[in-house]
Amino acid sequence: MTERRILQSYLGGRWISGTGPAHTPVNPATEEPLADVRGEGLDRAGALDHARTVGGPALRALTFAQRGAMLRAVTDALQAHRNELLDLAVANGGNTRSDAKFDVDGAIFTLAAYADLGKGLGEVKVLADGEGIPLARSPRFHGQHIMVPRTGVAVHVNAFNFPAWGLAEKAAVALLAGMPVLSKPATSSALVAHRMLEILTEAKVLPDGALSLLMGGAGDLLAHLGPFDVVAFTGSSDTGETIRGLPSVIENSVRVNVEADSLNAAVLGPDVAAGDETYEYFLKDVLRDMTQKAGQKCTAIRRVLVPADRADRFRDDLVGRLQGITVGNPALEGVRMGPVATASQLAYVRAGVALLARHGLLVFGRGEVQAVGVPPGKGFFTTPVLIEVESGASAPAVHSREVFGPVATLVPYSGAAAEAAELIGRGRGGLVSSVYSEDTAFTAEVVLGIAPCHGRVFLGSAKIAEASPGPGTVLPMLVHGGPGRAGGGEELGGLRGLSFYMQRVALEGSRPVIEKILK
Amino acid sequence: MTERRILQSYLGGRWISGTGPAHTPVNPATEEPLADVRGEGLDRAGALDHARTVGGPALRALTFAQRGAMLRAVTDALQAHRNELLDLAVANGGNTRSDAKFDVDGAIFTLAAYADLGKGLGEVKVLADGEGIPLARSPRFHGQHIMVPRTGVAVHVNAFNFPAWGLAEKAAVALLAGMPVLSKPATSSALVAHRMLEILTEAKVLPDGALSLLMGGAGDLLAHLGPFDVVAFTGSSDTGETIRGLPSVIENSVRVNVEADSLNAAVLGPDVAAGDETYEYFLKDVLRDMTQKAGQKCTAIRRVLVPADRADRFRDDLVGRLQGITVGNPALEGVRMGPVATASQLAYVRAGVALLARHGLLVFGRGEVQAVGVPPGKGFFTTPVLIEVESGASAPAVHSREVFGPVATLVPYSGAAAEAAELIGRGRGGLVSSVYSEDTAFTAEVVLGIAPCHGRVFLGSAKIAEASPGPGTVLPMLVHGGPGRAGGGEELGGLRGLSFYMQRVALEGSRPVIEKILK
Repeated sequence: MTERRILQSYLGGRWISGTGPAHTPVNPATEEPLADVRGEGLDRAGALDHARTVGGPALRALTFAQRGAMLRAVTDALQAHRNELLDLAVANGGNTRSDAKFDVDGAIFTLAAYADLGKGLGEVKVLADGEGIPLARSPRFHGQHIMVPRTGVAVHVNAFNFPAWGLAEKAAVALLAGMPVLSKPATSSALVAHRMLEILTEAKVLPDGALSLLMGGAGDLLAHLGPFDVVAFTGSSDTGETIRGLPSVIENSVRVNVEADSLNAAVLGPDVAAGDETYEYFLKDVLRDMTQKAGQKCTAIRRVLVPADRADRFRDDLVGRLQGITVGNPALEGVRMGPVATASQLAYVRAGVALLARHGLLVFGRGEVQAVGVPPGKGFFTTPVLIEVESGASAPAVHSREVFGPVATLVPYSGAAAEAAELIGRGRGGLVSSVYSEDTAFTAEVVLGIAPCHGRVFLGSAKIAEASPGPGTVLPMLVHGGPGRAGGGEELGGLRGLSFYMQRVALEGSRPVIEKILK
Repeated sequence: MTERRILQSYLGGRWISGTGPAHTPVNPATEEPLADVRGEGLDRAGALDHARTVGGPALRALTFAQRGAMLRAVTDALQAHRNELLDLAVANGGNTRSDAKFDVDGAIFTLAAYADLGKGLGEVKVLADGEGIPLARSPRFHGQHIMVPRTGVAVHVNAFNFPAWGLAEKAAVALLAGMPVLSKPATSSALVAHRMLEILTEAKVLPDGALSLLMGGAGDLLAHLGPFDVVAFTGSSDTGETIRGLPSVIENSVRVNVEADSLNAAVLGPDVAAGDETYEYFLKDVLRDMTQKAGQKCTAIRRVLVPADRADRFRDDLVGRLQGITVGNPALEGVRMGPVATASQLAYVRAGVALLARHGLLVFGRGEVQAVGVPPGKGFFTTPVLIEVESGASAPAVHSREVFGPVATLVPYSGAAAEAAELIGRGRGGLVSSVYSEDTAFTAEVVLGIAPCHGRVFLGSAKIAEASPGPGTVLPMLVHGGPGRAGGGEELGGLRGLSFYMQRVALEGSRPVIEKILK
């Protein structure tokens, strides 16, 4: 038996090895084992307690500006090791270098944004929430809402697809708010998150207990949550439901934020002719979302709504582009799409494609592919897959089954805004959908029609094509999350994200006293 | 068998009788039956659907100003029937006339406050949330958060203690936000809520489907909730937990707001000498919270922290005041405290007192009382009860068992702010606690120490004694709710309360287009 590197957990302020059976993250392109993770025998309750009793007070002793400076130091430390993190993302994530940048640079960018927000909040420990409120004719009797850090620990359970960004975007917000974090990455892609913690502990940029890392399964972690803790989860609806239903969570009113499944849609307006600048932009965004990170983005476009009278042309154009996508070992130059993350993800993708294909026509990709630059039969590869349905109304699975891979469905529609909104609404709650049109009336009708069931709506237009990264990119200044199927959560959104980690309190009393306390 | 009046439900836009066994609200002072409620055979799913498909679109077609005007008409209609509602609250709620005003006038005041807020929001249907956000160097690429009404139904499950205010404070916020409401009052005290609906349907001040009323048990009501519905519950922690754990709620990411148990504390500062203006104010607030509505307020002071060196004096002063409280039929002049709401509430109060008394000394009230103006042995009466413990640290039940009646515990403490904050924190999350002191340093230390575990902190000072209604009154402009044991919810707070009933959406795109859509 070869001696493989053990990925330790960072709990209670030290690196520590678990026991029990080994789980072995691999290179998903070559299936080469990369390290071992053993998750038993770790004192999860003790780790939570260390975060609460050591990390929490240390963070709360800092002002927002000081916590911002701390995040700036985190950003700098990771930036100094960027290439190393990119290499790990390629090796362990099946990422092309471009995919890896999307994850790692996204992490750094989000941390930097929250560092700036902290600087802007200044040398205060309590945030005022809105203006003072006169409560009686007497100006003395006065109300003021404030936000203070919650005194528990923030548990972050992250998904396999963004090991860097997932850790960073959640931790940035919690740490700026003043809450210590215990982060649990997905084991299959844990090398990047693990290395990030090594970098940060070596750089000594965080107080003891501010950021812990649990390698391996959650085990009994969540059973130890108390009334001032929070848990934020990104992953499948099923696991989200399990977390919401835990006795510890229900009995203690633990705040839960879930980002789960989402059948993100993109609709092409009837005003857009094939070959238009807006058409090309739409095509490019759909292609990017299908192939970037092999489609493993929770925000990726899954349903592509195109006016029926130009569906043939659009399908042909998209298929033409998909034919140019080289699938293979993402470490190689020229490879445009790597594998999905794990064997079980590949199986899910295949099952999902089989289901969708029962409702429509497989117009591109049969899944099986001889990937470039890998030993025959190795790696968790699939081609991109495009399915076309005759009618969105008669293909329920298109609106309910998220196939988490390079898979999209082409849905022709009449070109009426109301029909587009109705079809999109069948997703029963999503993270982001988008409208590509230069017709403001059409755009407005779709946007306002789908707004109640989304956390974000992207307005695609040739006017922003140069500046925008497309709907699939989550920006720290905008909220990320969505109702219903998407989990009902909300993250980021600049300062909005802090409120999950803070308690809003109404102070009610004499105005001069309240002002003195907050000065 | 006498023919009693049947309280019908108002569902699907019409009054309708249930079937099955009768539940019979009584006068809790005399036990005289007042009406019958039958809750079986009602089409709860159909009622929810009517609210979603008829009430929702009608409300969303109105601007905020129009919905404000609608709430103003609701306010006026109820105001025109105020005396009748007060009489019903006395008869069915065990309320003194003053208690009844607290409930009914509180309802009218809160509705009026949200009517004004609606007017202030103007002729818009979409709320901007914050300023526009530049997303790139190009000023064209732009973000704007907006709030839009959720497209489901708001189910409100109210507690027995505030039939008027409970219905009104929840409905005011939801209706202004643009969501239809199905309200379920507690059966035992349902006459007031039922009469309110009669008044409003007769006055025709609400669109069809905007406000429904379910009389009788919830039955399968909550099993029919979908991803865009919300449920707000006020009542016991146990029921709150049951609601949170429902499969329909978990699977659909239904938003849940819970207001549950709370061991509200009030602490007297060490700077306050017996006989001081602030001391008298503290005494008055404690007495009011113990006896108003027979202590059945979720915000009532349950734990009274007094510096040990003046605990004897305070106990004697409070006991002196309690001796002057006449308990009896609240319909009679001179009666200061009525019964609790039901026989089972009385049993809970007695059991709670027995538990607390094991930890301390019963210094006032044995529970048993010959109430004034009622037939012997009738009515759900108890005396006020004051228990004194030797030390808050060695009496865990004092911090965990909410006795929902005219019961408080006197807890001596050292006079140190840190000790007061620590003892209050043992409540593990509360709605409101209060500090009575003229020493700003002491006040600041307690306030900031307890803020993370409360939704509201009241700063008692002689300077506001004239203007303030005390910590037990919930004002519409301040948030109401609390973390942990208090259920983790948040209501009211002026416009803050609307967000529970709305979806926040980030619009991302070309600035001129976004501005045109929102203009």
